[in-house]
Amino acid sequence: MIKTAIKTKAYAANGSGQELKSFEVQRREPGPSDILIDIKFCGVCHSDLHQVHNEWGISNFPMVPGHEITGIITKIGERVTRFKPGDRVGVGCMVDSCKECKSCKDGLEQYCEKRMVLTYNDIELDGKTPTYGGYSERITVHERFVVRIPDDMPLDKAAPLLCAGITTYSPLMHWKAGPGKAVAVVGLGGLGHMAVKLANAMGASVTAISRSANKKTDAIAMGAKEYLATSDSSAIEKAQERFDLIINTVSSAADMNTYLGMLKRDGVMVLVGAPSEALPVHPFSLIPKRRSLAGSTIGGMRETQEMLDFCGKHLIAADIELIPIDKINEAYKRLLKGDVRYRFVIDIASLK
Amino acid sequence: MIKTAIKTKAYAANGSGQELKSFEVQRREPGPSDILIDIKFCGVCHSDLHQVHNEWGISNFPMVPGHEITGIITKIGERVTRFKPGDRVGVGCMVDSCKECKSCKDGLEQYCEKRMVLTYNDIELDGKTPTYGGYSERITVHERFVVRIPDDMPLDKAAPLLCAGITTYSPLMHWKAGPGKAVAVVGLGGLGHMAVKLANAMGASVTAISRSANKKTDAIAMGAKEYLATSDSSAIEKAQERFDLIINTVSSAADMNTYLGMLKRDGVMVLVGAPSEALPVHPFSLIPKRRSLAGSTIGGMRETQEMLDFCGKHLIAADIELIPIDKINEAYKRLLKGDVRYRFVIDIASLK
Repeated sequence: MIKTAIKTKAYAANGSGQELKSFEVQRREPGPSDILIDIKFCGVCHSDLHQVHNEWGISNFPMVPGHEITGIITKIGERVTRFKPGDRVGVGCMVDSCKECKSCKDGLEQYCEKRMVLTYNDIELDGKTPTYGGYSERITVHERFVVRIPDDMPLDKAAPLLCAGITTYSPLMHWKAGPGKAVAVVGLGGLGHMAVKLANAMGASVTAISRSANKKTDAIAMGAKEYLATSDSSAIEKAQERFDLIINTVSSAADMNTYLGMLKRDGVMVLVGAPSEALPVHPFSLIPKRRSLAGSTIGGMRETQEMLDFCGKHLIAADIELIPIDKINEAYKRLLKGDVRYRFVIDIASLK
Repeated sequence: MIKTAIKTKAYAANGSGQELKSFEVQRREPGPSDILIDIKFCGVCHSDLHQVHNEWGISNFPMVPGHEITGIITKIGERVTRFKPGDRVGVGCMVDSCKECKSCKDGLEQYCEKRMVLTYNDIELDGKTPTYGGYSERITVHERFVVRIPDDMPLDKAAPLLCAGITTYSPLMHWKAGPGKAVAVVGLGGLGHMAVKLANAMGASVTAISRSANKKTDAIAMGAKEYLATSDSSAIEKAQERFDLIINTVSSAADMNTYLGMLKRDGVMVLVGAPSEALPVHPFSLIPKRRSLAGSTIGGMRETQEMLDFCGKHLIAADIELIPIDKINEAYKRLLKGDVRYRFVIDIASLK
């Protein structure tokens, strides 16, 4: 129920596959537990593209994408105690959940047994109010879904941590990346480049896997010990049974069993990229080495804060290309070709 | 190198898909660490059928199938200390491994980094001697790959434990079936019926899943708390997000995502049946609940002994149909139709 609404400039797609254009949304005045955030930056996630093109078949329009949000608090509700106006904060992929089920109580709101409310292209728990994302001037969010950005971390480079960072940090922690572990990262896009940095900072020995040798220098600079170009078949041969954990940000059907073959006994490959098609998994890729294929999505709010603090401590942030909002459609075209190093971030000042 | 050979009656298939007929193999005189076993019973595993029909594309002929062997020791090599003539023993799916790699040292010979030697349709570590299985009068095996059958357990009902028993016991233990865990078993054949009995004895709450309601009474008697017939679509609906662990003995491509949908957050489905085709796994079956799809094969020798002792303690054995060797081809036809409750076991006395 929006009692008082705050007019907010935004950019939206009006239909599947359409270009994004100037649009206006209403934000609610902060309720008792809400926080109003003046958005400064918003990362451009590959899922923004999936959703604008309705590739998952669940898109609603008009759609204001964006779930890698950083900004400054301008107003807080009366019951908010953890934040104050002026604080530098972030909002990621979700803005609400039931807050009462076992998953929510475990701090795993992303696996809420009722449902989490996605930051955009979703409906609030009231069952009717659409959610609009971070390609906009401001946003009102329940304080539980707001995290603090470490003091020395620039807000633009921090934005991608809210999705690309936590989406890779969470499975790296869950499947215990660390000293003595051989971790491979498939795909060096927004998620992949963060996975390399994070796994390296956790002490794992990291191999970056990408199609061509193009990104080798970058990957080594990010902390990869080794680089494997899949265009080199002898390199693939040598990588059999080498890794304890593979973070697969690409999840292409054609390569599924090749990558599973790179796992040691009891190794796990985690899908964090989500293609819309089914993946052909051969039972013999799993059975003879007791391997697992798993999936993981973002991370809980407690873990998201932990990830930001970890990045602050290890001086990790995203490698970005900062763009004004009117370059967003061009950025989408480049993203489709994988032509970005390594995350587009929108300077929301350009919207105002 | 066979120095002295022992003529041994057997039953073999002479080519892909051919009927099994009387055949003769040579067994080696026991070397210093070997044991010669007078075979009493041999279970009929579904993989015998796969192999005879060359469904995995790795068959060699003539083939003497059989890897669920029980019998009595007749002779031991001079270095054998754990066994003596007269002992009641079993041999399962493997008869050798490198015995030196990390997996072997961990007691996980089935994941040997060099290779395990399968009980039949394989080549010994000498690189040339074919292995022949348990559809035969006797077998010579390195003592490491021989296990003791508990005193009160009948040798005929014990035979299927050597493959069907350990293949389900190992993943149930590895993924921690026990009190408080909801475990589903897909398929009520040789493996499935053992999985139900074992998971129940471990203290888990077991649901048996089968195509029709035919096996309901049996499944409840084996220890299943609930029974789910997949022909009942409303039952499938109600089973969403219900299980911590699914042991899938069927692994049919059509049902893969349905079963994954029955897993709770962090649930694992383990494939122990091995179809020859790739399984279409939808990333969204895994990602939103951090689920895993895993595979597992038999178990190590230490664990096989542990399983037998567990079965002895809990008075568990296989439900069998005892057949003479000349009924084997008929049994294969019935097995193809799933018409067996729940494991054919060959009475090897009929071969002598």
